[in-house]
Amino acid sequence: MEDNKIRIGITQGDINGVGYEVILKTFADPVMLELCTPIIYGSPKVAAYHRKSLDLPTNFSIVNSASEAVNNRLSVVNCTDDEVKVEFSKPDPEAGKAALGALEKAIEEFREGLIDVIVTAPINKHTIQSEGFAFPGHTEYIEERLGDGHKSLMILMKEDFRVALVTGHIPVREIASSITKELIQEKIAIFHRSLKQDFGIGAPRIAVLALNPHGGDEGLLGTEEQEMIIPAIQEMAAKGILCYGPYPADGFMGSGNFRHFDGVLAMYHDQGLAPFKALAMDEGVNYTAGLPVVRTSPAHGTAYDIAGQGIACEDSFRQAIYVAIDVFRNRQFDKAAHVNPLRKQYYEKRDDSDKLKLDTVDDDM
Amino acid sequence: MEDNKIRIGITQGDINGVGYEVILKTFADPVMLELCTPIIYGSPKVAAYHRKSLDLPTNFSIVNSASEAVNNRLSVVNCTDDEVKVEFSKPDPEAGKAALGALEKAIEEFREGLIDVIVTAPINKHTIQSEGFAFPGHTEYIEERLGDGHKSLMILMKEDFRVALVTGHIPVREIASSITKELIQEKIAIFHRSLKQDFGIGAPRIAVLALNPHGGDEGLLGTEEQEMIIPAIQEMAAKGILCYGPYPADGFMGSGNFRHFDGVLAMYHDQGLAPFKALAMDEGVNYTAGLPVVRTSPAHGTAYDIAGQGIACEDSFRQAIYVAIDVFRNRQFDKAAHVNPLRKQYYEKRDDSDKLKLDTVDDDM
Repeated sequence: MEDNKIRIGITQGDINGVGYEVILKTFADPVMLELCTPIIYGSPKVAAYHRKSLDLPTNFSIVNSASEAVNNRLSVVNCTDDEVKVEFSKPDPEAGKAALGALEKAIEEFREGLIDVIVTAPINKHTIQSEGFAFPGHTEYIEERLGDGHKSLMILMKEDFRVALVTGHIPVREIASSITKELIQEKIAIFHRSLKQDFGIGAPRIAVLALNPHGGDEGLLGTEEQEMIIPAIQEMAAKGILCYGPYPADGFMGSGNFRHFDGVLAMYHDQGLAPFKALAMDEGVNYTAGLPVVRTSPAHGTAYDIAGQGIACEDSFRQAIYVAIDVFRNRQFDKAAHVNPLRKQYYEKRDDSDKLKLDTVDDDM
Repeated sequence: MEDNKIRIGITQGDINGVGYEVILKTFADPVMLELCTPIIYGSPKVAAYHRKSLDLPTNFSIVNSASEAVNNRLSVVNCTDDEVKVEFSKPDPEAGKAALGALEKAIEEFREGLIDVIVTAPINKHTIQSEGFAFPGHTEYIEERLGDGHKSLMILMKEDFRVALVTGHIPVREIASSITKELIQEKIAIFHRSLKQDFGIGAPRIAVLALNPHGGDEGLLGTEEQEMIIPAIQEMAAKGILCYGPYPADGFMGSGNFRHFDGVLAMYHDQGLAPFKALAMDEGVNYTAGLPVVRTSPAHGTAYDIAGQGIACEDSFRQAIYVAIDVFRNRQFDKAAHVNPLRKQYYEKRDDSDKLKLDTVDDDM
């Protein structure tokens, strides 16, 4: 374990928000450094400013690149102009530039194989916009830069409660016309693959939500269920994917029925995220599925309303680190198991209870 | 108190669902009969069938009309053909007819002044449809029959968490084009009046949710916030109503910020109800505000999946009874206070601390 700790590239995000606070709080606990080798893409100067003004105990080393990062230390790669100033809670184009610079450096070093996964601290989606960044958010940017043509799927998750979206950052006015049978099927397929490969679930069960209130009430309140959603589910089910629905969102979330599924596919942003955050905001993690890179982030944003006060909770960020580690390991296992399952298992496990091990992926690896 | 117990008309709803189960379970507790005089509009035969097959201890008296109902007894007014049969979980047009008959009788006796408030058990919205009932649900029907031209507002509530909707039972495709500045203002006005009169809140604070993800992100994800929602809020605020927003629904529900407001106005069905039910399904109550009649119902439906099994939870129905009582009393107080506040207060309270009493409405009445 010692020799192959997962190297986590962490982008600093908006330096005027709570990003550094949750990062430094997370790595104040030395146990975290036993799980992974964290490398912040950001600014030693800014990190030191946050450390001091919030009175945090976390130490870090300055490195030129992730290649210099050593185990049992938090490292910082400088990607930021030393002139940049922290002004808590202020939307500042200079801070946006600093956020983008960190993200680009992390992507560059990921391509070079110097880090294994990327965890992003929250950005201000307005100040980061520039010639080099014209996207609604991290997810779309990373899909473009590291997707190799694959489509991404945003999954919000807390433990076994995972919510993904068919449509994302679009106006409500455009939701109904954006939803097609093919799009739903594409999302089900990515979700299914991710639940298997990334979360080690052998036969994942996916619940699909209805678009309209009461599931369209047999056409009285909308026809998309009958015309698109039900056929999409039926065709995917015929291919052997365990998908069910469509379920009216309110009753489904209220009854706790989501607990019976490994994933919930919502039709649009607020339908999925409002109940998800109501139930699981504190430890929610945003995972970008479907791409060759493993990227997670906390479910919260820059939280300008509490930035610089020392009261931000790091739970969500810490969970983002855990999920990145778990997914990376699950993918390694999945890959290994498919290349040459028996030999590989014996080699890795050094015992001969190979049958049992298939059920205990998380504990053993 | 003994002499003026509130007379609650309870409609049986769908006889094949969990309605009778939650009614009979609620009134199995004799304390409930100290709070109110309940009259079920339904069928003594069907009530007896549910009582026996679910092994419930609740007794009741058969009466011809609410005028015969006595204190400390649960009464049943027969409104149903004796030939009707209970078949748990079955959508049956005969059951729909029975549900409608009970509702009509309750409305008739409410008009005659024989009952004070109406609490409705869940109906099957399909089987009840007929020449006499062509509405999406109870709310619209009661608005038509007992509204005297007033507009209703559906409020889902649990204790101080109250969610109302600008648009209700319409397809998602029609949401954006249904929302206007005037409609939002109309709903804010009804909500405000209800929070004052019905819940005794002197200066209620209302949070208005955004329509689009991230509140439209300054126009990138939709323009309704800038064109309609923000002007609606500003104009209402200028009239002295404490309304705020628009808030993006996911963050608002996730951060617990709803706790700072007396009411939350959502733009559409799933936006309000999915997070509400996720947080408060168990004891949620549906209150129809804005009408001369006080009508409540549990937040759940017929629950065919568990009908006849004896496992339905009556908490939501019991809360519906409590809310109906509270709202009726608050309205009486509000009316009395406005007719001739000082004399009336002295008369009712028989003491002279009238100033204090304005703050202790709920405890004293």
